[in-house]
Amino acid sequence: MAHLNEHYLKLKTGYLFPEIARRVRQFSEENTDQGKSLIRCGIGDVTEPLPFAVIEAMHRAVDELAHRETFRGYGPEQGYEFLRHAIAESDYRKRAIQIDDDEIFVSDGSKCDCGNILDIFGHQNRIAVVDPVYPVYVDTNVMAGHTGPADGSGAYEGLVYLPCTKNNGFVPEIPSTRVDLIYLCFPNNPTGAVATREQLEAWVSYALNAGAIILYDAAYEAYITEPQVPHSIYEIPGAHDCAIEFRSFSKNGGFTGVRCGFTVLPKSLSALTSNGKKKALHPLWNRRFSTKFNGVSYPVQRGAEAIYSEKGREQVRILISHYLGNAEILAESLRSTGLEVFGGRNAPYIWVAVPSGYNSWQVFDKMLRDKQVVITPGVGFGAQGEGYFRVSAFNSRENAREVARRFKEVNW
Amino acid sequence: MAHLNEHYLKLKTGYLFPEIARRVRQFSEENTDQGKSLIRCGIGDVTEPLPFAVIEAMHRAVDELAHRETFRGYGPEQGYEFLRHAIAESDYRKRAIQIDDDEIFVSDGSKCDCGNILDIFGHQNRIAVVDPVYPVYVDTNVMAGHTGPADGSGAYEGLVYLPCTKNNGFVPEIPSTRVDLIYLCFPNNPTGAVATREQLEAWVSYALNAGAIILYDAAYEAYITEPQVPHSIYEIPGAHDCAIEFRSFSKNGGFTGVRCGFTVLPKSLSALTSNGKKKALHPLWNRRFSTKFNGVSYPVQRGAEAIYSEKGREQVRILISHYLGNAEILAESLRSTGLEVFGGRNAPYIWVAVPSGYNSWQVFDKMLRDKQVVITPGVGFGAQGEGYFRVSAFNSRENAREVARRFKEVNW
Repeated sequence: MAHLNEHYLKLKTGYLFPEIARRVRQFSEENTDQGKSLIRCGIGDVTEPLPFAVIEAMHRAVDELAHRETFRGYGPEQGYEFLRHAIAESDYRKRAIQIDDDEIFVSDGSKCDCGNILDIFGHQNRIAVVDPVYPVYVDTNVMAGHTGPADGSGAYEGLVYLPCTKNNGFVPEIPSTRVDLIYLCFPNNPTGAVATREQLEAWVSYALNAGAIILYDAAYEAYITEPQVPHSIYEIPGAHDCAIEFRSFSKNGGFTGVRCGFTVLPKSLSALTSNGKKKALHPLWNRRFSTKFNGVSYPVQRGAEAIYSEKGREQVRILISHYLGNAEILAESLRSTGLEVFGGRNAPYIWVAVPSGYNSWQVFDKMLRDKQVVITPGVGFGAQGEGYFRVSAFNSRENAREVARRFKEVNW
Repeated sequence: MAHLNEHYLKLKTGYLFPEIARRVRQFSEENTDQGKSLIRCGIGDVTEPLPFAVIEAMHRAVDELAHRETFRGYGPEQGYEFLRHAIAESDYRKRAIQIDDDEIFVSDGSKCDCGNILDIFGHQNRIAVVDPVYPVYVDTNVMAGHTGPADGSGAYEGLVYLPCTKNNGFVPEIPSTRVDLIYLCFPNNPTGAVATREQLEAWVSYALNAGAIILYDAAYEAYITEPQVPHSIYEIPGAHDCAIEFRSFSKNGGFTGVRCGFTVLPKSLSALTSNGKKKALHPLWNRRFSTKFNGVSYPVQRGAEAIYSEKGREQVRILISHYLGNAEILAESLRSTGLEVFGGRNAPYIWVAVPSGYNSWQVFDKMLRDKQVVITPGVGFGAQGEGYFRVSAFNSRENAREVARRFKEVNW
């Protein structure tokens, strides 16, 4: 008889965002009038239209599919050369980072990549995640059978949790125990923190010594404003031998509904077989794409390419300024009520310490009920997230101003 | 130190189509002039433009993304309700098959689904595949660690291969040993065979008795022309309790480069935990979508929806007639040279017995060198495919006629 994958049964009820959606839906159904003035600062979903360069490129690509002479069927599973080249050239080589076109793997988004990357690794690896953490890193490891059950705090047996706290500036310390795969995310979701060059150097040095691999999620790279903050893990010497980088067009080009991202997997990166031989990982990831994926939609790839055009870059710059402007307005209003506020300067997320007497779901419920503002409870990102909530700056300016106004009125 | 997934190292060199591409590239480089007259009947990739209804719908959707008021970011991971409803209603309920909207999971293609579905099953299942087989079923099981190494014929230890031969009309017999997961594909790729209602009833009866699950790939359903041939496994009573169906827009709407397909996973379908409890699979597949996927591109989902419009259906009907017309021309020319020809009536593939004295790669090389026609060697689909080659009918009418002419000239 067919058996199911029992590891799925270990997963805690809510993947965070569906649980938020459920509470919001329930509130809106029970409070029809108030539901109408609801403003969402919860999920990290963009609100502004696509850059016009992207719209034009997608229209052109759709038109190509309307004519036999320009029609395209199956594309290369790893992405069209025009896009792999644009990425490698603009995001890396122009910044003096050597990445070849064929080290870029174009996908339908970073969420998929962060989960799928586990396919090419063995089950014996010891996995480290930060806490608070983007839940996908954890849940995909649970589903792959890399953990035991969760404890009362929601932490899974077998994972190494690296606390990110106010004391370490929300950048984890190098672990004292051996770990083999380490998820890092900078600019960070949910805390908005960034790592300095020195901190990343320490991580690369640890990984090289331990033979560990860093899974570096740089989905929010476009929000970095401070010149000294590294944009890519490959700015750090040695990272080509110990890191995989994830990037996304969701938060720069506004592709959350269009779906495109990429991984960078250098050909120099290797891992061990069980009899101790080092083998390159690039052929495995390449094979995974060939066998379990069929490439990203052609009009979407043309849209992504347009982000790298002169017009596209300028339009993205305006989008980023817009969201970071929101972040400033929101952070300022929260600070003015006496709350302690982090992030929001190199990231579209603000990380706020809850007032005393509240836990993070209580703040969520209070904000929803009293102010019709949806925020994200910090504990949804892990035990260390308790005591915080996340405010997303993805909104119209009008909504950001209105939320700032409501924040000032909260009766704590 | 980080370990890789060693099961990948068991994979034989070529995923079939990259190997074909390599040989074609090499030929074209070495024979620049002849390379120009090359006609591809190898990979099953469509050649005709998208239906105009799809083009219009995609343009409209792209325009929606250009304005704040109509912009859409993250959609539901399992697909927009408008598309799930159109699918469930048109492909199932209108044909008197009860499938709920939320039993439809919209994905970026059947290739991905066929691989990803393994995530929700345990590793202890005994897996049956047909031979010849669509290589993705086999390779994804190898990658998941469900097999031993391959033998000289390319067959992997631990998989149960069900021979599909001329003697059984290319429809496998019910296995005599226990199996837990069974991949079936009708209309079949590569043989073009279809299963009768009675044959599918026997399979469903076997699966219900054995507690097995049928993974039913119906990607070529739109090509069924004979009225007695079942379009869906769910036409067979009991299939809701033992089958998952895969469908694709690649071969009806021409979405090979646009990327959209879906799985049907009935809520009544269950499998065992290791302590023998039956649990529904629907929540697991739903969770996989929520956690490891972020939905299909919005303009693509609108394009897929348009396939179900009145205009869309008519335009798809014309496309299918076109390709089946090619199949008739190609089959006829091959038959006229004395070759034994199968398929092509309810499928876009023709399965041809090689002339004596040839194996299937030799036919591939000869067709490429002498006639600049790319076919697919049967052995690429498994040991039982030796002695056959596949001709795809996906082409312009002009190319199909030219290939038919060249087939008649081959000097065997």
